[in-house]
Amino acid sequence: MTASFFAIGLGVGTRNARGNWLEVYYPRPLLRPDHVLCARIAEAVGHKGGNLCIDVDVDVLMHLVSAAEAANDHDYADLVRQFSASKRPMVLTLLETDDEPKTTPEAYLKLHLLSHRLVKPHGVNLKGIFPLLPNVAWTSAGAIDLEELPARQLEARLKGEQLTVHSVDKFPRMTDYVVPAGTRIADASRIRLGAYVGEGTTVMHEGFINFNAGTAGTSMVEGRISAGVFVGKGSDIGGGASTMGTLSGGGNIVISLGEGCLLGANAGVGIPLGDKCTVESGLYITAGTKCAVLDDKGQVVQVTKARELAGKSGLLFRRNSQTGTVECLTNKSAIELNAELHKHN
Amino acid sequence: MTASFFAIGLGVGTRNARGNWLEVYYPRPLLRPDHVLCARIAEAVGHKGGNLCIDVDVDVLMHLVSAAEAANDHDYADLVRQFSASKRPMVLTLLETDDEPKTTPEAYLKLHLLSHRLVKPHGVNLKGIFPLLPNVAWTSAGAIDLEELPARQLEARLKGEQLTVHSVDKFPRMTDYVVPAGTRIADASRIRLGAYVGEGTTVMHEGFINFNAGTAGTSMVEGRISAGVFVGKGSDIGGGASTMGTLSGGGNIVISLGEGCLLGANAGVGIPLGDKCTVESGLYITAGTKCAVLDDKGQVVQVTKARELAGKSGLLFRRNSQTGTVECLTNKSAIELNAELHKHN
Amino acid sequence: MTASFFAIGLGVGTRNARGNWLEVYYPRPLLRPDHVLCARIAEAVGHKGGNLCIDVDVDVLMHLVSAAEAANDHDYADLVRQFSASKRPMVLTLLETDDEPKTTPEAYLKLHLLSHRLVKPHGVNLKGIFPLLPNVAWTSAGAIDLEELPARQLEARLKGEQLTVHSVDKFPRMTDYVVPAGTRIADASRIRLGAYVGEGTTVMHEGFINFNAGTAGTSMVEGRISAGVFVGKGSDIGGGASTMGTLSGGGNIVISLGEGCLLGANAGVGIPLGDKCTVESGLYITAGTKCAVLDDKGQVVQVTKARELAGKSGLLFRRNSQTGTVECLTNKSAIELNAELHKHN
Repeated sequence: MTASFFAIGLGVGTRNARGNWLEVYYPRPLLRPDHVLCARIAEAVGHKGGNLCIDVDVDVLMHLVSAAEAANDHDYADLVRQFSASKRPMVLTLLETDDEPKTTPEAYLKLHLLSHRLVKPHGVNLKGIFPLLPNVAWTSAGAIDLEELPARQLEARLKGEQLTVHSVDKFPRMTDYVVPAGTRIADASRIRLGAYVGEGTTVMHEGFINFNAGTAGTSMVEGRISAGVFVGKGSDIGGGASTMGTLSGGGNIVISLGEGCLLGANAGVGIPLGDKCTVESGLYITAGTKCAVLDDKGQVVQVTKARELAGKSGLLFRRNSQTGTVECLTNKSAIELNAELHKHN
Repeated sequence: MTASFFAIGLGVGTRNARGNWLEVYYPRPLLRPDHVLCARIAEAVGHKGGNLCIDVDVDVLMHLVSAAEAANDHDYADLVRQFSASKRPMVLTLLETDDEPKTTPEAYLKLHLLSHRLVKPHGVNLKGIFPLLPNVAWTSAGAIDLEELPARQLEARLKGEQLTVHSVDKFPRMTDYVVPAGTRIADASRIRLGAYVGEGTTVMHEGFINFNAGTAGTSMVEGRISAGVFVGKGSDIGGGASTMGTLSGGGNIVISLGEGCLLGANAGVGIPLGDKCTVESGLYITAGTKCAVLDDKGQVVQVTKARELAGKSGLLFRRNSQTGTVECLTNKSAIELNAELHKHN
Repeated sequence: MTASFFAIGLGVGTRNARGNWLEVYYPRPLLRPDHVLCARIAEAVGHKGGNLCIDVDVDVLMHLVSAAEAANDHDYADLVRQFSASKRPMVLTLLETDDEPKTTPEAYLKLHLLSHRLVKPHGVNLKGIFPLLPNVAWTSAGAIDLEELPARQLEARLKGEQLTVHSVDKFPRMTDYVVPAGTRIADASRIRLGAYVGEGTTVMHEGFINFNAGTAGTSMVEGRISAGVFVGKGSDIGGGASTMGTLSGGGNIVISLGEGCLLGANAGVGIPLGDKCTVESGLYITAGTKCAVLDDKGQVVQVTKARELAGKSGLLFRRNSQTGTVECLTNKSAIELNAELHKHN
């Protein structure tokens, strides 16, 4: 029997009183795992194709241990063995393909793939994920169904126990699931599971990273990386800086930053930037902002909407503090600029 | 005996070592409750009029159960019964009128009325509330008096226990008291008890809602709603956007937003807005900002301070990116605008 | 034997599995303590000079009690006695001089000196502190080494316990170590150990204070005080306002604010301000911003870069909403301004 899976996850999670999944934690999600492991697991659980979630009992765990040993992945076998002692709800999620997720465990597995840096933002199919993620109270006692919360709060109070509700959201915070290597995350409440935090990235207290968004590598993030936004290596997001997302208000342009960019403090962008671009502190560039494009001699070559400058490299955006004009400084000659700006006409 | 109360709350809370209330949790505050319930409770506790807080013991609880049963409110009777098993400090707060609060339990009851959406911002008398709210350490072990905190911290540390101090504030965070239905609150540390979070509102990580402030209904809140500010249905507050409060720096103009407004990311307003107004990302409109008001043909009709535009609908504020002029775009003819802007002269 | 120490700390902390310090909590750090106490401690531990950290056992504690009693500091003796019952890792840190810290316990002691308000920002030698502060997972179960975190997370999950990771950072949050008197700190995750929070300061939810930074006295902080920035008495930092730090992007100008200043909401400064300066909401002044300086009659006297105005008092920065020009309003005559602005030429 030959089999290959897009992804496999063995998880432990929380169900509400009606038995519905609230969340799943996958300690070691597998992307395109070893073929022997895939074949053995498929055989063990009688997989006939498709994406599915399997309730896990001791038998399933024993089969998984055997499969891992057969694939010579002793670390994975050890991991599975640890599950045997647990009385918490467990699930084995098998994704044959990267089709749209259909269940909560599938959705959570895909968010894990991103935060474990196994796939990059836009690198996994998240279509239709919102309805699969229940709105959950994330508390000091774990995930709690919102309908069950008031009774739990009263019960705790009357006993003199503290039940802290950290968040009420469809997404948990990433660090309660995984802390990717080589990162600093000053305020964990500001990074959702499904964020991709590149190695060498520091997210300061005012930084924020939504799901399906993040940094490729070394970055100082002191501002907000909206859903879908990906930031190249060496680019910094200044304090309180904003990137427009596609979920609300930002239209359908997918924003990204190239490498070596700097968004100044309290600045913002509504267009994708190429490499080595700078937006001055306090300046917000939307797609419709008219910019005076300056050549390498500081002469205005053309006034154009910022969306025409999307993805270009080596730009410096500022608002002239004497005239109030938004300017885009370049290192190019007037001739080069004219050629470049008109090539789509 | 006839009696009616403005509000009733049966609460469980925390006292410091000297017996003073630090905070009170009311699981089901009642606004203008059923008259039979009021009469029975008044009788049971010998209420002679006025607003008062009564220490609760088993006798009081038994009277409350009887009163609730007499009023056919079996859910409330069940709630009261649960209190019987508790050894925590309990209080029954009876407000005959909406006079200024005089005690900590009264102040907390009023904050609960707001967050349970029983009254809207500015809908309850909060005058003089600040001195009634002690500054408290909100910790993983509950509310702790600040004078008692260092000893508790040392004790926990020496035992190897973690005592996390989440906040040192006069207001606790709302979600530890109530999560109103139909809301998402990504970072619970940013919403104070006393906030009014409308059904259908999502408060993202950068969102913030102070007490006596909030949203009427469906809103995406990614910016800051200051004390006293109320936001109409369908209005969105962009990432990092600011609304001026009346507590500090904002003067005495009460800010509000009508329905269907959009405050862009990193924008701000220091005037109330009518319906369907937009403030461009990155633009801060204070009351004193001079705006060039444009008619439906894009011609400047008049330059006026923003406070003259307070409360008007259908306005779009932007800073012209070529001239640096703050403009207010309208859909009205020059004649209509002149008539409207001069009608108070 | 005579001895004097710059600082002494008796601490309890956390070591990782390899025995390395992750963090140290000093409940009562001592700055330039009483000479008798110094002499007795030096004698008891056989101190031969220099800065050092000593592992603490019952013998050391007994010597410390004797030293404290000899110095008539019975409170300190009582504090030391409490340590006797603990089984946690303890350390005695003796700093003869304010030399660069060389160990984790030394670094933590210096951060404590700042947050206990024993020294002001820039008042203690922190050179080379970053490598001494390990990157730690700050969790609901205390400080956890990042390499040990995944195993701890899995273990907790399989048991059905909640292990919340609040932060992954080199600095813990201040309030878990000390809450200085007379302060309110709405969201404790936004103030690092090493911050100096002046008496009478309220830090709202959007406020932030980095280490080696803070406020001298009464301030309302609703924006970000970057590393190294010190704010004078009576100065307010508006919501989302930004101060440039020297760590990233801010160059090497150390920013400070004098007394009675106001940074408006969403404003920012990249220059130090004198007393009674105001920056309008939404305006970012960088060192390179060209400002039209106006005299007391509102006439432009000169256009100058903001760095030339660094440290001067009584300035109001705004962007003219009709012309887009950044203006600096003063109360001085043209003659006075010319003299002042040219005196360095």
